[in-house]
Amino acid sequence: MTEAAGAVPRRSFSRRFLAGGAVAAAVGTAVPATRASASGAETTAPTTPAARETVRRARAGGEVRHMRMYAERLPDGQMGYGLEKGGATIPGPMIELVEGDTLHIEFENTMDVEVSLHVHGVDYDIDNDGTRMSRSTVPPGGKRTYTWRTHEPGRRKDGTWRPGSAGYWHYHDHVVGTEHGTGGIRRGLYGPVVVRRKGDVLPDKQFTVVFNDMTINNKGAGETPNLEATVGDRVEIVMITHGEYYHTFHLHGHRWADNRTGLLEGPDDPSRVVDNKITGPADSFGFQVVAGENVGAGAWMYHCHVQSHSDMGMAGLFLVAKPDGTVPGHEPHRPPGHGHP
Amino acid sequence: MTEAAGAVPRRSFSRRFLAGGAVAAAVGTAVPATRASASGAETTAPTTPAARETVRRARAGGEVRHMRMYAERLPDGQMGYGLEKGGATIPGPMIELVEGDTLHIEFENTMDVEVSLHVHGVDYDIDNDGTRMSRSTVPPGGKRTYTWRTHEPGRRKDGTWRPGSAGYWHYHDHVVGTEHGTGGIRRGLYGPVVVRRKGDVLPDKQFTVVFNDMTINNKGAGETPNLEATVGDRVEIVMITHGEYYHTFHLHGHRWADNRTGLLEGPDDPSRVVDNKITGPADSFGFQVVAGENVGAGAWMYHCHVQSHSDMGMAGLFLVAKPDGTVPGHEPHRPPGHGHP
Amino acid sequence: MTEAAGAVPRRSFSRRFLAGGAVAAAVGTAVPATRASASGAETTAPTTPAARETVRRARAGGEVRHMRMYAERLPDGQMGYGLEKGGATIPGPMIELVEGDTLHIEFENTMDVEVSLHVHGVDYDIDNDGTRMSRSTVPPGGKRTYTWRTHEPGRRKDGTWRPGSAGYWHYHDHVVGTEHGTGGIRRGLYGPVVVRRKGDVLPDKQFTVVFNDMTINNKGAGETPNLEATVGDRVEIVMITHGEYYHTFHLHGHRWADNRTGLLEGPDDPSRVVDNKITGPADSFGFQVVAGENVGAGAWMYHCHVQSHSDMGMAGLFLVAKPDGTVPGHEPHRPPGHGHP
Repeated sequence: MTEAAGAVPRRSFSRRFLAGGAVAAAVGTAVPATRASASGAETTAPTTPAARETVRRARAGGEVRHMRMYAERLPDGQMGYGLEKGGATIPGPMIELVEGDTLHIEFENTMDVEVSLHVHGVDYDIDNDGTRMSRSTVPPGGKRTYTWRTHEPGRRKDGTWRPGSAGYWHYHDHVVGTEHGTGGIRRGLYGPVVVRRKGDVLPDKQFTVVFNDMTINNKGAGETPNLEATVGDRVEIVMITHGEYYHTFHLHGHRWADNRTGLLEGPDDPSRVVDNKITGPADSFGFQVVAGENVGAGAWMYHCHVQSHSDMGMAGLFLVAKPDGTVPGHEPHRPPGHGHP
Repeated sequence: MTEAAGAVPRRSFSRRFLAGGAVAAAVGTAVPATRASASGAETTAPTTPAARETVRRARAGGEVRHMRMYAERLPDGQMGYGLEKGGATIPGPMIELVEGDTLHIEFENTMDVEVSLHVHGVDYDIDNDGTRMSRSTVPPGGKRTYTWRTHEPGRRKDGTWRPGSAGYWHYHDHVVGTEHGTGGIRRGLYGPVVVRRKGDVLPDKQFTVVFNDMTINNKGAGETPNLEATVGDRVEIVMITHGEYYHTFHLHGHRWADNRTGLLEGPDDPSRVVDNKITGPADSFGFQVVAGENVGAGAWMYHCHVQSHSDMGMAGLFLVAKPDGTVPGHEPHRPPGHGHP
Repeated sequence: MTEAAGAVPRRSFSRRFLAGGAVAAAVGTAVPATRASASGAETTAPTTPAARETVRRARAGGEVRHMRMYAERLPDGQMGYGLEKGGATIPGPMIELVEGDTLHIEFENTMDVEVSLHVHGVDYDIDNDGTRMSRSTVPPGGKRTYTWRTHEPGRRKDGTWRPGSAGYWHYHDHVVGTEHGTGGIRRGLYGPVVVRRKGDVLPDKQFTVVFNDMTINNKGAGETPNLEATVGDRVEIVMITHGEYYHTFHLHGHRWADNRTGLLEGPDDPSRVVDNKITGPADSFGFQVVAGENVGAGAWMYHCHVQSHSDMGMAGLFLVAKPDGTVPGHEPHRPPGHGHP
């Protein structure tokens, strides 16, 4: 029971799924940067995060993992997925897999309405689809196990190339309110899935940003999440869109590649580098940036660039602190969401 | 007169253009899988479609082809393109070419309004543009020939790379109702064009899915097409958007690469693999999936993932049958469109 | 003080930023085609533009450049950026850089409202963000210097690949009307930025097309710009979207690659070739086409393919003339915008 990525930020917006309950440390083949550094040239220990000389990379896949997941009503009328009773969050827990892994999710519906778990990107038999038609929803108070599989890329017998499961995917309800889960998604029944390829670069911090109708992670204007990091942190953002509207995700001062990993593979990768991307419901993508690289610390906005959407508050801050913890020009004690008046 | 792809599904949604009228067999350089297999290792004949050991590939281009096409009113007030009088369909016939081919379309307007044929992606002189400004529309009862050319990729004299014509393209009216063909497109005057590169993998089955305003192939809720295949079939989907709205195309249980062919070229192709894609009017893309690969038989939904659109019925089924013809959990005698209540 | 591209079209829609004021000639490392040709095989001088045997390529970066920019009210109530007082245009001046360049912009606000300059894609410290929160806006009558930096791609100490700054980017106001510059953008405070990589192919002509709400470059129906070129010209189009709506950009008779440069790098580049692309506010991309390649001279439409948008006049012409200056089927003395009734 290991995790693809080891370091867990204290204040991520999505609680992450840590199979086996190991919260603190990366184990197995995912070697933390500090350990890799220690085994190499400890004398040249980096003095700032920006000087990191190694990255952690995803372990090999092939594990069979188990987790529990609960669908719950939240006190404010919203709904969420959680890893334990009373622990539901919006977005739901981050689920990370490596190609080749299988995940069994023991799912319990603690609500008084039928609910389900439908996932994008990974492999599952039709009776794990999370749709009413496939009879894979869960009645009020009910339980069932959803099994997701993943696979590595490889060459088929016919000579063509079979893509692997790696990607920035997501899960969501497919039955609350309508046959397409419109009510469940609106109330918060969604979460991120990251499937890595063996050797993929692992982040230091990870955030999930969901543009769900006019909210970010179901938070409206003034309550939207800020993403906190320190200069040099390798920060991963998983961006998912839900609901009714199209949006454009924009991040100030940082860019990413519009490809599978959000990272250029090298000088020959022709992918467009962008800092703004149109998305529609159920689109998902992800990327990693080195916080403040070439631009330094700051309170960097991220927002939907559809003008009326940003004006209505679809905006938050990527707070990139100096090593001393300060963010130039940003008063840290402001309530979140009021840093961008 | 050959076709790029040989196998024709009995119940495709778009009648395919078969220059010369050869319906049944692939001839010329497009060798059917069975023949290629026979010339190799016949003793290891595949027992299920999933075990296929070869693929058919597109022939070389360079042919000069001729076809007839008719614009017609359909009994229900819609309009369509067809290969013969009285044979118009929505979408219009699939036109497949290989880079280097030239196609002459003897076009007849059997309607009482001016109509045209405008195509994306291929080469044509301005007087084949299908716009009123270029004087290339066809009056009621009129005839004309549209000529489309295609070309292979190659290096220009100046050293830069000239892209070839290969792509998932489409044609549509550009004059009915408005100067941009808004009325013609709305009523059904559109169809797919696939230009292949020599050596491109050919599908076993082929479907065209057009999100045209809130319809799929001009069919509303409950009447949308189901796509039928057997586990292991190499299925090609050509996805086109028309009209006024943006959509997100989602397919359950299957994914594709967001690049030219929808197929990864190999381990170094950095393209994102997706199962959901935002599209707007006149966007087109295509891909091939191996039906049921890693997931098995089932009634897999495809739908627009804009929540109100799917709720209003922009959904259909990708019915992947077992080799015995059954689809788990799906009652085959249900009327199409009622399989996803 | 050199420019990445040397040839300046007489009637481009965006005035280009020419640091140092050298208008006519490319100097430095950007060698004009004629010179490169002269040093090679002068005897085979091209007889038509289509027969060009060389391209100019971007010089090396690393220069420190200075320019002045003014924000101004235009007589019709719109607002624009310009290189000199009284010279504001919509879009604002084209700013071209090569990776490694630094640009200092001495900015003056001649208006009676606070304004700013926010840029996408390039590097800058947070106090150059052009947002109110970062205290980097400019009061009425005020001045300040914005500094933009760019960097080449390269390998980080940790072994990962750092993307370079190259891209088709843009700048815009971030404070007029709302905290996100909705009023400024609507009135015309935006412009293109192209950052090239050393060796990138340079165009002969360059046009900026901005879909800003239902306008093109803030011009409504009948007033939209035509893009004029001659067969064989290497034409670059920088396409930016602003405002509230999504659009699809379509160009008749010409295609481009959906990657960083809009050009395929060679036969192994898997990028999709398109002639239609969905975009949302603040998305930007660019590409080069050889005017009339494989299709010849003509009045080729470009337009938004959202049907109601094109019907309302979001359309213009790419006028590709024969070497003798005539455009087949196009009457040159028509007022612009009336060529596509």
